[in-house]
Amino acid sequence: MRMYDLIEKKKRGEALSREEIFEMITLYTKGEIPDYQMSAFLMAVYFRGMTKEETALLTEAMEHSGDTVDLSLFGTRSVDKHSTGGVGDKTTPVVAPIVAAAGGVVAKMSGRGLGHTGGTVDKLESFPGYRTALSPAEFTAQAEQCGLVVIGQSADLAPADKKLYALRDVTATVNSIPLIASSIMSKKLAAGTRSIVLDVKCGNGAFMRTPEEAKTLARAMVEIGTANGRRTAAVITNMNRPLGHAIGNSLEICEAMDVLRGKGPEDLTEVCLTLASLMISLSCNKELAEARRTAEDMLESGKALSKFEEWIAAQGGDARYVRDPSLFGRATHTRDVLAEQDGFILSTNAEALGTAALILGAGRATKEDTIDPRAGIILHKKPGDAIQKGDVIATLYTERESALDTAEKAVTAAVVQTDKAPDPEQLIFDVITEATL
Amino acid sequence: MRMYDLIEKKKRGEALSREEIFEMITLYTKGEIPDYQMSAFLMAVYFRGMTKEETALLTEAMEHSGDTVDLSLFGTRSVDKHSTGGVGDKTTPVVAPIVAAAGGVVAKMSGRGLGHTGGTVDKLESFPGYRTALSPAEFTAQAEQCGLVVIGQSADLAPADKKLYALRDVTATVNSIPLIASSIMSKKLAAGTRSIVLDVKCGNGAFMRTPEEAKTLARAMVEIGTANGRRTAAVITNMNRPLGHAIGNSLEICEAMDVLRGKGPEDLTEVCLTLASLMISLSCNKELAEARRTAEDMLESGKALSKFEEWIAAQGGDARYVRDPSLFGRATHTRDVLAEQDGFILSTNAEALGTAALILGAGRATKEDTIDPRAGIILHKKPGDAIQKGDVIATLYTERESALDTAEKAVTAAVVQTDKAPDPEQLIFDVITEATL
Repeated sequence: MRMYDLIEKKKRGEALSREEIFEMITLYTKGEIPDYQMSAFLMAVYFRGMTKEETALLTEAMEHSGDTVDLSLFGTRSVDKHSTGGVGDKTTPVVAPIVAAAGGVVAKMSGRGLGHTGGTVDKLESFPGYRTALSPAEFTAQAEQCGLVVIGQSADLAPADKKLYALRDVTATVNSIPLIASSIMSKKLAAGTRSIVLDVKCGNGAFMRTPEEAKTLARAMVEIGTANGRRTAAVITNMNRPLGHAIGNSLEICEAMDVLRGKGPEDLTEVCLTLASLMISLSCNKELAEARRTAEDMLESGKALSKFEEWIAAQGGDARYVRDPSLFGRATHTRDVLAEQDGFILSTNAEALGTAALILGAGRATKEDTIDPRAGIILHKKPGDAIQKGDVIATLYTERESALDTAEKAVTAAVVQTDKAPDPEQLIFDVITEATL
Repeated sequence: MRMYDLIEKKKRGEALSREEIFEMITLYTKGEIPDYQMSAFLMAVYFRGMTKEETALLTEAMEHSGDTVDLSLFGTRSVDKHSTGGVGDKTTPVVAPIVAAAGGVVAKMSGRGLGHTGGTVDKLESFPGYRTALSPAEFTAQAEQCGLVVIGQSADLAPADKKLYALRDVTATVNSIPLIASSIMSKKLAAGTRSIVLDVKCGNGAFMRTPEEAKTLARAMVEIGTANGRRTAAVITNMNRPLGHAIGNSLEICEAMDVLRGKGPEDLTEVCLTLASLMISLSCNKELAEARRTAEDMLESGKALSKFEEWIAAQGGDARYVRDPSLFGRATHTRDVLAEQDGFILSTNAEALGTAALILGAGRATKEDTIDPRAGIILHKKPGDAIQKGDVIATLYTERESALDTAEKAVTAAVVQTDKAPDPEQLIFDVITEATL
């Protein structure tokens, strides 16, 4: 195989064979295909696309480019959830205990990464003592006993994707549906769960601007999962509305626990129930309507909250914080951001709010940065809300007093006002399952 | 400027600005833009194309990426010719003296390169003593006195093109009209002549398979030249027919001198007269029909042959070889290739004939190889010719006796026979000038 021929083939719009795709990914991962050839290939894929078969094969090849997690012990019960980006996404700590309480097994590795706020494991580390590094034996044992374990990523999952993504990121070849879909799904396949539920966000801040684009991506991912023997479903959610009010690590954990107590924001609760229903449906083999009733029951009965506490404790975290969230404490410096005029909130720029949270200390700009678990933003007003001049739109929390002015400006700029009440926006656009493909 | 943004812009099908193109080429030549970004950009150009303005600007930017030759001393009289590939192309040693005898100035640097036979300077070195390295002062002086000087490439002309071409060659991005056209024209612009005539070959062995494709390329190049203030014209010629009979260095020089004596093969003579007419028309400011008469007169009167002798002598070559070509001698080993059956010659594979010539010692496979000036092939039969079993189709010449068997097989395979007389093929498909754009 010559990489030149594969570029040429794709350039002409032809489909690559299984052997070609696997050899290409193997050699690229080993460094035997240079970046300049791969980037030309990726640009050809941008223009020519890939067939469903090619996309599934590319995903499978990337899945097997590194470690894979073996969860076969749990049969059909293992299930994972993935959100495509999103600032202030705190669905995992809500959804995972609901699903585990209902009988599913959520055993996942979660990246830290760079970004506006920490990743899921960073958020969980808000609990003093929470162990993000477990041995494989500990990981499996906790999954068996508790049905729920979330650790930092130790295995080398889908290294081909890591290398390819870094290249796409600097060669303007990110926004290709087959490449996005295979990138996400290769990591999910390597993570070993039998079922996968995808939260595909669409809106201003997201890759997918419109529900139609998001549906195309969702469909591609469900097809990949199905072709690779996983039960897969996707939910298209609105990213123009941030979910809930909190942005920042312990702030989001507290909001997640509010949902588990039945006191959470309506939008966040609804998205979490939708995701949990799909996960229960796939992992416990129930009709979607029945799975929804189960999910609601797990919340209302308090079983999901108990499972949350059991999980945090099992993983070494201080469970008193679950019962008394005030123990998380509050950041030293706070500031209220006030409305400058009367009107309505039209939209909030998630990206800009995320940047403000980062400035306040909630995220990492470089790998070496440490995260301040208490830093962040509480948004008091959301799209559609009426506001009067002087109303508190948001409150900032930080240990960095000097960051307050910049963050305040960023938040003010991120909140777009309008004179007239805007039309209410849909929260969930669609659900894609194998049956609706 | 971020290269990422330029890739994205081209990917969306937008045109780059003058500043963007110049900065991109400058930074790429300096090594400050990595190959993996440039190859993604080139693939985007393959799919999106470039506007006429962009193509002209890219050419100008590459022209100025290195040295440029100053021929302003010669006003409008300087003129160059370029052939897009072609095996056994011996038009330069015929055309240059015709044009110089008519008053044009042909002052050129010619690459050696790798390939089936030597480049033009290698062919000229068949004359003992011919100096391929002259100082800039000597170069200019000879151009003034003789109107004709051809040396090896000493200046660093269009290094950006060299680097880009090497990248295109390994990333399947060669076959893009704006990239091919700008690559060729950047070197021609840097070579400094006021007028440029292009011989665009089309057919099996050429980049451009059909006359239509070749016309598109020719038009793009004439547009680039015109946009950059050069008088430019192009001839579309048939590459399915090799020009003349000789392949190999001194063999081709002898055939070129045959044309200058009025005894050359008809097809080679016709193409040379067409090219020379255009060059005379542009450099001496004559109507094409008048230029044609001048070119014919230069041949018939012997003035072109005298100019040839004057040129070789001025550049240190032994002019006795012009008057008595038998001095070139003959290779030690020869072999006749015989027809295996009766019929007609349908076509000859130029590429395969070139490879046979290389095996016999006429070209260089690596930079270090030396060329045997007497090695090569004389094709006695050409497409359309009737043959009988046992007829001598070709004669091989070499110092490498062991190469004869392989070369014979290659030549036999390169000559395609047919039972019926094939339709005669056109020699010249079209002429493109500024006026016909």
